[in-house]
Amino acid sequence: MNEQELRRLLESLQQGEIPVEGALERLRHLPFEDLGFARVDHHRALRHGFPEVIFGRGKTVAEVTAIAERIIDRTANLLITHATLEMFEALSARFDALTHHARARCVTRCTDATDRGRGTILIITAGTADLPVAEEALVTAQIMGNRVELVADVGVAGIHRLLSVREQIAAASVVVAVAGMEGALPSAVGGLASCPVIAVPTSVGYGASFGGVAALLGMLNSCASNVAVVNIDNGFGAGYVAALANRR
Amino acid sequence: MNEQELRRLLESLQQGEIPVEGALERLRHLPFEDLGFARVDHHRALRHGFPEVIFGRGKTVAEVTAIAERIIDRTANLLITHATLEMFEALSARFDALTHHARARCVTRCTDATDRGRGTILIITAGTADLPVAEEALVTAQIMGNRVELVADVGVAGIHRLLSVREQIAAASVVVAVAGMEGALPSAVGGLASCPVIAVPTSVGYGASFGGVAALLGMLNSCASNVAVVNIDNGFGAGYVAALANRR
Amino acid sequence: MNEQELRRLLESLQQGEIPVEGALERLRHLPFEDLGFARVDHHRALRHGFPEVIFGRGKTVAEVTAIAERIIDRTANLLITHATLEMFEALSARFDALTHHARARCVTRCTDATDRGRGTILIITAGTADLPVAEEALVTAQIMGNRVELVADVGVAGIHRLLSVREQIAAASVVVAVAGMEGALPSAVGGLASCPVIAVPTSVGYGASFGGVAALLGMLNSCASNVAVVNIDNGFGAGYVAALANRR
Amino acid sequence: MNEQELRRLLESLQQGEIPVEGALERLRHLPFEDLGFARVDHHRALRHGFPEVIFGRGKTVAEVTAIAERIIDRTANLLITHATLEMFEALSARFDALTHHARARCVTRCTDATDRGRGTILIITAGTADLPVAEEALVTAQIMGNRVELVADVGVAGIHRLLSVREQIAAASVVVAVAGMEGALPSAVGGLASCPVIAVPTSVGYGASFGGVAALLGMLNSCASNVAVVNIDNGFGAGYVAALANRR
Amino acid sequence: MNEQELRRLLESLQQGEIPVEGALERLRHLPFEDLGFARVDHHRALRHGFPEVIFGRGKTVAEVTAIAERIIDRTANLLITHATLEMFEALSARFDALTHHARARCVTRCTDATDRGRGTILIITAGTADLPVAEEALVTAQIMGNRVELVADVGVAGIHRLLSVREQIAAASVVVAVAGMEGALPSAVGGLASCPVIAVPTSVGYGASFGGVAALLGMLNSCASNVAVVNIDNGFGAGYVAALANRR
Amino acid sequence: MNEQELRRLLESLQQGEIPVEGALERLRHLPFEDLGFARVDHHRALRHGFPEVIFGRGKTVAEVTAIAERIIDRTANLLITHATLEMFEALSARFDALTHHARARCVTRCTDATDRGRGTILIITAGTADLPVAEEALVTAQIMGNRVELVADVGVAGIHRLLSVREQIAAASVVVAVAGMEGALPSAVGGLASCPVIAVPTSVGYGASFGGVAALLGMLNSCASNVAVVNIDNGFGAGYVAALANRR
Amino acid sequence: MNEQELRRLLESLQQGEIPVEGALERLRHLPFEDLGFARVDHHRALRHGFPEVIFGRGKTVAEVTAIAERIIDRTANLLITHATLEMFEALSARFDALTHHARARCVTRCTDATDRGRGTILIITAGTADLPVAEEALVTAQIMGNRVELVADVGVAGIHRLLSVREQIAAASVVVAVAGMEGALPSAVGGLASCPVIAVPTSVGYGASFGGVAALLGMLNSCASNVAVVNIDNGFGAGYVAALANRR
Amino acid sequence: MNEQELRRLLESLQQGEIPVEGALERLRHLPFEDLGFARVDHHRALRHGFPEVIFGRGKTVAEVTAIAERIIDRTANLLITHATLEMFEALSARFDALTHHARARCVTRCTDATDRGRGTILIITAGTADLPVAEEALVTAQIMGNRVELVADVGVAGIHRLLSVREQIAAASVVVAVAGMEGALPSAVGGLASCPVIAVPTSVGYGASFGGVAALLGMLNSCASNVAVVNIDNGFGAGYVAALANRR
Repeated sequence: MNEQELRRLLESLQQGEIPVEGALERLRHLPFEDLGFARVDHHRALRHGFPEVIFGRGKTVAEVTAIAERIIDRTANLLITHATLEMFEALSARFDALTHHARARCVTRCTDATDRGRGTILIITAGTADLPVAEEALVTAQIMGNRVELVADVGVAGIHRLLSVREQIAAASVVVAVAGMEGALPSAVGGLASCPVIAVPTSVGYGASFGGVAALLGMLNSCASNVAVVNIDNGFGAGYVAALANRR
Repeated sequence: MNEQELRRLLESLQQGEIPVEGALERLRHLPFEDLGFARVDHHRALRHGFPEVIFGRGKTVAEVTAIAERIIDRTANLLITHATLEMFEALSARFDALTHHARARCVTRCTDATDRGRGTILIITAGTADLPVAEEALVTAQIMGNRVELVADVGVAGIHRLLSVREQIAAASVVVAVAGMEGALPSAVGGLASCPVIAVPTSVGYGASFGGVAALLGMLNSCASNVAVVNIDNGFGAGYVAALANRR
Repeated sequence: MNEQELRRLLESLQQGEIPVEGALERLRHLPFEDLGFARVDHHRALRHGFPEVIFGRGKTVAEVTAIAERIIDRTANLLITHATLEMFEALSARFDALTHHARARCVTRCTDATDRGRGTILIITAGTADLPVAEEALVTAQIMGNRVELVADVGVAGIHRLLSVREQIAAASVVVAVAGMEGALPSAVGGLASCPVIAVPTSVGYGASFGGVAALLGMLNSCASNVAVVNIDNGFGAGYVAALANRR
Repeated sequence: MNEQELRRLLESLQQGEIPVEGALERLRHLPFEDLGFARVDHHRALRHGFPEVIFGRGKTVAEVTAIAERIIDRTANLLITHATLEMFEALSARFDALTHHARARCVTRCTDATDRGRGTILIITAGTADLPVAEEALVTAQIMGNRVELVADVGVAGIHRLLSVREQIAAASVVVAVAGMEGALPSAVGGLASCPVIAVPTSVGYGASFGGVAALLGMLNSCASNVAVVNIDNGFGAGYVAALANRR
Repeated sequence: MNEQELRRLLESLQQGEIPVEGALERLRHLPFEDLGFARVDHHRALRHGFPEVIFGRGKTVAEVTAIAERIIDRTANLLITHATLEMFEALSARFDALTHHARARCVTRCTDATDRGRGTILIITAGTADLPVAEEALVTAQIMGNRVELVADVGVAGIHRLLSVREQIAAASVVVAVAGMEGALPSAVGGLASCPVIAVPTSVGYGASFGGVAALLGMLNSCASNVAVVNIDNGFGAGYVAALANRR
Repeated sequence: MNEQELRRLLESLQQGEIPVEGALERLRHLPFEDLGFARVDHHRALRHGFPEVIFGRGKTVAEVTAIAERIIDRTANLLITHATLEMFEALSARFDALTHHARARCVTRCTDATDRGRGTILIITAGTADLPVAEEALVTAQIMGNRVELVADVGVAGIHRLLSVREQIAAASVVVAVAGMEGALPSAVGGLASCPVIAVPTSVGYGASFGGVAALLGMLNSCASNVAVVNIDNGFGAGYVAALANRR
Repeated sequence: MNEQELRRLLESLQQGEIPVEGALERLRHLPFEDLGFARVDHHRALRHGFPEVIFGRGKTVAEVTAIAERIIDRTANLLITHATLEMFEALSARFDALTHHARARCVTRCTDATDRGRGTILIITAGTADLPVAEEALVTAQIMGNRVELVADVGVAGIHRLLSVREQIAAASVVVAVAGMEGALPSAVGGLASCPVIAVPTSVGYGASFGGVAALLGMLNSCASNVAVVNIDNGFGAGYVAALANRR
Repeated sequence: MNEQELRRLLESLQQGEIPVEGALERLRHLPFEDLGFARVDHHRALRHGFPEVIFGRGKTVAEVTAIAERIIDRTANLLITHATLEMFEALSARFDALTHHARARCVTRCTDATDRGRGTILIITAGTADLPVAEEALVTAQIMGNRVELVADVGVAGIHRLLSVREQIAAASVVVAVAGMEGALPSAVGGLASCPVIAVPTSVGYGASFGGVAALLGMLNSCASNVAVVNIDNGFGAGYVAALANRR
């Protein structure tokens, strides 16, 4: 039952077309949920500043195309994460204005570039190998309407490199810190930042890095108080949380 | 070397009192750090809206008292986490205006209650046993100058209880979701919220909860995009991050 | 909003006391949840055959007493798990007909002994040390209105002991198999049973049993197809699931 | 020794052809097991409502064909799990009435569609990526003679979607809840259901999902009392247990 | 049904007192198990050279006394593992000839000291802290009728100490190697021994020894081919296996 | 220094060609090890009944051929484990009497089939998928001079199948029990056997079997006292230990 | 700002070309970091005896070539770890004097072979399969200016082989001990050495070696006091630490 | 056989009192080990600069006293780690010149303070709670004859504090870096140091620090090349390795 149907039900009651008991019966088990489900989507668009994201992995090119079509009909911007080149090419044959972000494995379509952020989101990586995850965060935050800066390869084993971007860190509205191996970057960044630091462990490393577990544990145990963590390699999630934290 | 000292050094050079090589030598290994260390503290007070927090665990009553004395001299508000009743009593003998938050195991002294937040921080728990951690987050966020609401015992096994606070969730500026056992609450809350959700796993549970690991993993793998996670039982960290995300 | 309030709202609309828009506004954000929350409780009583269970651990004697009082007012049967002797004594001073199940750490009050089951629930343990968990399952299933049999100490290292209860196993409606150490019992029982086997790993063991993890993994990997597993030491959950599976 | 042989032995004794001691000797070490082994199979067919299932993984096409041939001779229905397309094609060349369930990776032959269930089994998934596991459960439960409904993509991050199937959940005889990532679905479903919920963790996810471990732990620690769990990706086991719990 | 009952049944059949069908019916579900259960016990005594062992942990003094009484009635030797001093004192008040092995936490009663072994069992430890576990193995193997030698504190960090007992190792019939920390002893001993080496990891260590896991993994991955492993701290199991391997 | 050199040194001393101090100096740091290294090899041949085993994995065909050549020169029997078909073919071009055991991934050359065992080694598997590991144990034990029997597919979920080989188990000198998934077989076999049971966990399984960890833990925690365990999939080690335990 | 620029700034101030405030302004936010970053590199060259190492994994041939070009311009020696043959061939087309270490997966260019060590670094392996990791350590230590010896295949299961190199161990300045499986070698070597032992666990092994975890834990729990550990398979790190410990 | 006995044997041979064969026989199985065992001790004293260390944990006061007596007789310096106050008091009653290091839980007796180091060992901690472990390292390195400096509470979340001791780090001969929680300190220190960094993870932390595992993994995965790691809380081992690396 959507809002039109609900309105019609209430009007029928008002006009004596149905009795109170009949309306009560329908409302008692009111499938607000179907309505709600649809509303949730609209609410999500209003609230989060971004309607729907397609997670490309595990979907066929045809499935992604079909979903993308429905979104493009309805909303200004589109983000597909874990997208393949093949998906990009298939979509490009049907839609214009698409961009392929190869390292971030994302496809975007941005027709509304309104700035929705309060400040700048700074994305910072410990090594160059962390860049695919960092760029997924960057693409996500940008298409949600944020100014984003990216600083790479400032791991804690070369503290002076990190200090050289001290002022960018201090000026940021939100920082996303991306690191594999020992995952120490967010702790050092946390001490220099005056804002929330969203930490993203990556699976960069070998041996006892256990596919990112060492970095994850390091970040969860950070001695800096302003650090919160997302899943291993989850650049999208970090960009999303950062965008919400930066919303006006 | 602080700014006065630096200025004096430069003036000495200008006036020919020291040669270029001498100035170069001092500046090459410029102990900006000592200055910096002091500045960091001031910066932290300016930036984070809260000067210093005493982590009570592992400290003696005497140590906590000594540190508290220095903070009270300098700043308006004080927070001691993991505080014992004995610490509270010892401090009360010397300072006025102290509050003991028994369940949160915190002691506070709040003489500046300026509201520094943009909106309301909502703290929400899955069960009543999660309350000590949730209240640590509440005390932390409050003393950092935020309006905070606390809703308890709305775990996902009783979805209607959660839906009954749907509007509080929708209205919040930041949500802190606290849960042990399977840690599913942040996922459900994330779908209802339009803001960042800081998830706190607790060690509530037994058997295969492994002291909070099950909840931690659940939260890291949340299918909601707006969830970031702090360490198990780290109510303080969640409150701190929430306060920074809520800052004007 | 409960049903009375909903009815009154509809009558107001029918009688023209409020306009459609006003009713729509109230119903759009219909706090069905508060009503729902209450209803869920009643539904739970109707559906699960048992209204509310008090989990004693982490609650004070006063809290348990207060909750018990409300339940006893409303329903015939009461179950408190993880109950202490002190809780039992405090409750006995106020209520009659209470039973203390020491080994199961349960307190019950059973004034309605209606048989709600289709058949017999058989609870079977690998060792005597598994009995506290097994008896928690037994007490739970009994107070939910089931005939329950308990067979102890028939671990797989003495297969003939297990075979001696083969016919009880074959006749059961649901089997609860409780084992620590290697947790092999459910696999052997599964091959002999024609019904679901609810497996309960226990923390009985030492060394590489890791507090029940070895038994848990053994049960999850059972080569018998009819085995499902609950948490380590979760006798209550096993009894509860068994009771629902045995419901008429 | 099978039943014919046992009968012959007893007749020989009755007719004085062998002495008591000779019969005693043979019976003392009576290989009832061989007989028993055969009987167990028949018993399994009678009891479980399904004779034998072929686990295709790790078997050659020839082996699967040989086993299938023997089963088809003897029984009405056949189920092969973890079956390849190649297996299906080889079997189709020899037997009629075979169905290939591609997503579930199953092959079935159903010549007896008798309804053996008391009610409806509802299979419900958190995401679309959980469908292969869910459909394996569906195929299993169906060929064992059950009415089965499948509802997909109602994860807890969109609670209204879940609530929209609330009545299906309430009406089910058994629910199978399938989820990867944080595995929160069974907890939410458990609160809405009046029957046992068989939870199936899937390996859907990445990073700290650890191949389904996060979902598994979430399900084992469910705050809903009516949840029992099977192995990661074990759709077959869940369907099997659900079928037994639903048997008349 | 025990052997007498079986004989009587066969005689009844022989004498025409019961028909073949009646005998068949009774034998088809022959409760060999009850008989078998008893026989298994006797068999165990005959086969393993030792009738029954009481695992003291988790049993009351009264329970241990009751079980001990039944064993002493029937068999020559008694072993109680994980026994307390209190158990020893209670038993000493009723039975003579008891010995308390304090470090091994065992109580024994040995009235039959027949040598049942083919050779000597050598028990060897890496450190002195491993002695409680080693002595449990020693007491177990001795009361099962073996000559046992014990060599302590010959860990691999002092190879010459190990080499000093090279000839004892070479002469042994079975070696039990007990070690905590890195658990390297069995590998080194394995290279010097011409017999099976039963490795016992102990929980001796700290930090990343994880309560014996490091030693356990070390032993399971031994590069010596003649090493098999028992559970952490399971001196009894090692002594038992060694005794069986040494049986004539 | 080998034995010839040692003898010459002693003769020089006896004949006064070198002083005591010179001999003492040489002997103090006596490189007995080189001699010892060679002797160890000979000892190993004498003691273990088998000279050298080639672990094929990670070696080139040329390396395996070179090592095999040296062994064939010197000893009667050869065993190569983890051997490829390519290795077998290369070796067959140079040596006669080679056998390729495809499922066990072994190559053997047996020119001395002397029976060195006291009794029969029984190898028993839970499932057919465990056969590669079981056959590696079989090949190993056979070429070391033992009578070996193999019984497959008698897992505990079909207890009657296991009981049907009860007498073979009771008659064995050593049992090797091979199982994946929950690894329960050794516990059940342990209760039926009067000899040591060498348990081999296999990586057969999926999900929470974690590549054999579930089976490994099950076996380490066996409630049967006569079970010792080797590494996951280590059929060679199990056959080797069994052969030593069975040596005359 | 580098040293030249800093000197020029100070000279400008001294000569009155700029005022104190102007210098102060530039120095207050002195990008010492950029300078520092450059200096760190120079310092690293001076301190560590080796300027820069290229980690080849995850880099393209073009990237490696570009970085190598810059290093070769500036410094005498070059080390590329995790290098492919393709990288070597591309580099060889542009630079002379390159060496490809196939087993170590390294490329080196050594034009300065100054001996910078105090003594000899001994690298010692438990098995031949550990050689790739050991040779990476060897190549690293050599190009940093050290005499290095390599001894292979002296695992603890053949103690006499290890003792045969006792004098090399005793004479070494630093020992690098490389082992997979149970990782026991460093403990045995530690007892024979009078210097630090850098232990390198390798991923050699299977089953419960868990990709090197068993060896890692064994080394961390070594009962020898002079053992420190690097990451699994980290031959480079071990060679690097050994070179620093051996520096004059 | 000790050196006297060996000398006597050789003299007997020289003087014709025994034949070559007799000497050969005795030497072939020469129990060099007993001699060696004794020699190892002397060698250890000569090589490691410290004779014997008593690990106090798990030893009685009487045992520690007895061992201490033998060491004090023979050598100048004594170190007891994991010592209790009770041990110190009992020892003080018998020996003079003892020092109790309460926080380090050590007792020392230092009568030879010769400086054996090449430079200064710097011990540096992330937090004050790491001090007990750091001081154990300090006491160990000092009594082995080293100059040692200790800097506390310079964790990476306050980088400027760390930079303030940059010159001490650069000047050190060996650095011991001690940290709990995320264990990031060694990476940052490693980038500033020109010497080996011995990293010590501590069990300081809570939740997902898992008793030091997070810090341990962080250190093993350090992106600094000059870091090697010891066991959790193993201050003694770190001090010992540092002392050996600093030896002249």
